[in-house]
Amino acid sequence: MRILDIIEKKKINQALTEEEIKFWIDGVCDESVADYQTSALLMTIFFNGMNEYETAILAEAMRNSGDIIDLSDIPGIKADKHSTGGVGDKTSLALCPMVASCGLRVAKMSGKGLGHTGGTLDKLESIEGFNIFLSEDDFKKQVNEIGLAIIGQTGDLVPADKKLYALRDVTATVDSTALIASSIMSKKLASGSDSILLDVKYGEGAFMHTVEDARELAKSMISIGNSLGKSTMAMITDMNQPLGNTIGNALEVKEAVETIQGRGPKDFTELCMCAGEIMLIQGNIASTKKEARKMLEESISSGRAYEKFIQMVKAQGGNIEQIKNTELLPKSKFITEIKSKKSGYINTIHSQKLGILAMQLGAGRASKEDEINYAVGLKLNVKKTEKICEGDSLCSVYHDESLSLDWIERLYSAFSYSDYMPEHTKIVEEILK
Amino acid sequence: MRILDIIEKKKINQALTEEEIKFWIDGVCDESVADYQTSALLMTIFFNGMNEYETAILAEAMRNSGDIIDLSDIPGIKADKHSTGGVGDKTSLALCPMVASCGLRVAKMSGKGLGHTGGTLDKLESIEGFNIFLSEDDFKKQVNEIGLAIIGQTGDLVPADKKLYALRDVTATVDSTALIASSIMSKKLASGSDSILLDVKYGEGAFMHTVEDARELAKSMISIGNSLGKSTMAMITDMNQPLGNTIGNALEVKEAVETIQGRGPKDFTELCMCAGEIMLIQGNIASTKKEARKMLEESISSGRAYEKFIQMVKAQGGNIEQIKNTELLPKSKFITEIKSKKSGYINTIHSQKLGILAMQLGAGRASKEDEINYAVGLKLNVKKTEKICEGDSLCSVYHDESLSLDWIERLYSAFSYSDYMPEHTKIVEEILK
Repeated sequence: MRILDIIEKKKINQALTEEEIKFWIDGVCDESVADYQTSALLMTIFFNGMNEYETAILAEAMRNSGDIIDLSDIPGIKADKHSTGGVGDKTSLALCPMVASCGLRVAKMSGKGLGHTGGTLDKLESIEGFNIFLSEDDFKKQVNEIGLAIIGQTGDLVPADKKLYALRDVTATVDSTALIASSIMSKKLASGSDSILLDVKYGEGAFMHTVEDARELAKSMISIGNSLGKSTMAMITDMNQPLGNTIGNALEVKEAVETIQGRGPKDFTELCMCAGEIMLIQGNIASTKKEARKMLEESISSGRAYEKFIQMVKAQGGNIEQIKNTELLPKSKFITEIKSKKSGYINTIHSQKLGILAMQLGAGRASKEDEINYAVGLKLNVKKTEKICEGDSLCSVYHDESLSLDWIERLYSAFSYSDYMPEHTKIVEEILK
Repeated sequence: MRILDIIEKKKINQALTEEEIKFWIDGVCDESVADYQTSALLMTIFFNGMNEYETAILAEAMRNSGDIIDLSDIPGIKADKHSTGGVGDKTSLALCPMVASCGLRVAKMSGKGLGHTGGTLDKLESIEGFNIFLSEDDFKKQVNEIGLAIIGQTGDLVPADKKLYALRDVTATVDSTALIASSIMSKKLASGSDSILLDVKYGEGAFMHTVEDARELAKSMISIGNSLGKSTMAMITDMNQPLGNTIGNALEVKEAVETIQGRGPKDFTELCMCAGEIMLIQGNIASTKKEARKMLEESISSGRAYEKFIQMVKAQGGNIEQIKNTELLPKSKFITEIKSKKSGYINTIHSQKLGILAMQLGAGRASKEDEINYAVGLKLNVKKTEKICEGDSLCSVYHDESLSLDWIERLYSAFSYSDYMPEHTKIVEEILK
């Protein structure tokens, strides 16, 4: 078998066989396939795509390239969720304790943030002492004991994906549905859970700009998951404004805690409820959405979801006093109110712009090496379709350094107005299985 | 400027600017652009193509990557021709002396053969002592003195093309019209002639399988040549059977000598005449095709074309006795007649099969390092549309080793028959300018 023939085959838009895909991925790992050949093949995949079978085989081959976490000694269904990344996306922080408090076992590996989207691990690390580096054994022990753990990647998971992603990043081959789907799913498959809920975001602040693209990616990932024996479902959710009101690590932890106490923003609470319904049904905890929603509502009203969050923070060495009193979380030196210069209905709130502005305050990383300032960020005081009057607060900026005029101008430009009330959009557009 | 943005731009099918193409080729030469990025860009060019302007800029940037031969101190128009490669293609050997004897200055750099197609240099080297390695000065001196020189590449011409071609060869990006056209033309542009005639072959034994593909390639090359100030024309010629009757180096020299003596095969003679007409008009030697053809006919009947060939061989150190008496050229140990097993009209003669069979006798190279046996080859005793009876000779095999049954079977399979006379096809399908 020659890699040249495999490139040629995909170039003339023929489907690759299992043997060919495995030959390629083995060659990527042992370096018998040169990077220039892999990049040529990646580009043919960008142009000609891969069918469901090829994509599943690719995800499987990548999964098999490294360690695979074995969660089989934890009884019951182990649930995982994954978000394709958004602005203000603190879903795991609220959702996982909610479903865990209903009896679902959640064994979740998360990532750090880069660019305009934040990472769950960074948010958790804004809690003093919170340890994201658990060994595989400690990870499993914690899931067994309290039903919930959220950690960084342990072991050498999916080295083939690391190599491919590094190459895609410098060869303009990131934005291929087959490659995105197999990359995400290879990691989910390697982390050992039984059910996977995918939160595929669309819109201006998301990787997928349209509902159609998000749906295509979701379908591809569901197909991979199901064909490799994982119960996989997806929600298509709106990222045309930030999720909830806050962007920034400690601010988002606070908002997540408020949400599991029943005091969260409407859009974020609704997203957690919808996601929780799916996860509880996937985990055989509830049999209908109605039943699941009732359980989730009770997990909040009874304080069990909040208790579960406290248990997780405690188990992972975090300072639970900061959860009991979120005023103890890292605080910025300054809070500046940004007041509306106009009156009208809020028509759009550019998530990506706000994500970048928050990153520039220190809430995120422009490059992998950057340090995070957990205290800084933005809090929206208005959401899409709401009416605002000149002089009302648009948002509060939590910052440690003085704000430049340019930065403030760009913040203003993230909001646009309408004379008439814009149409309301749903946070969860669609559920796919 | 970043190569990543250039790949991305071509990927979304936008035309690259002059600066972007030069940035890329400079980066290929100084290795600041990684091979894996170049191969990704090559693949986007395969899929999205390049417009005429981009292709010309690419050819120019490649030409500028190395030495450029300056023929300006030779008076008059210096002519060059190039064939995209065929089986039995000894055109330069006969055509160049013909047009040179009419007063055109021919300064031609040729290549060696690889695979099923032969190379002009190999054919010339079957003449004892013939020196293909002239210095630039000796090359120019010879063109000045006798009006004709055919040599191998001198100097460091088009190093960018060498690097790109090596990469294309291992990344399945050879068969892109824009890349083929810019590669060929960069070399023609660097070798310094004023007019270029392109012989673009189509058919089973050629790189371009259809007339349409050949036409597309020809148009692309003409556009490059004309936009960079070279008078460029092309002929589309038929490679659905070998050109002339012989395949193999000394055999083809003999056939070329016979042709410039007026005793050559009809198809090959006609191709030389058509090519000669174009070259003489390009070189302002003749003003009409009719006038040019008369001159070419006289160059043969007067013996001047033959004399010019002798002059070139002598100037380049070759043994002219082998031209005066071609029986002195290298001779194979054995000649085996292959007799037809059937009667009928010859319907197809598979050029590529015959090219490979001749290569396996030793007439060509399977890989670059292989040595050539100048004596061996094939001589067809029948051409397409001719009638043959069972027992008549299909072809004569000139060989040094015994022929395997498998080889002979494959030779038979290169000929197919018809009960009715097949339609006659023209050797020169079309002339483009």
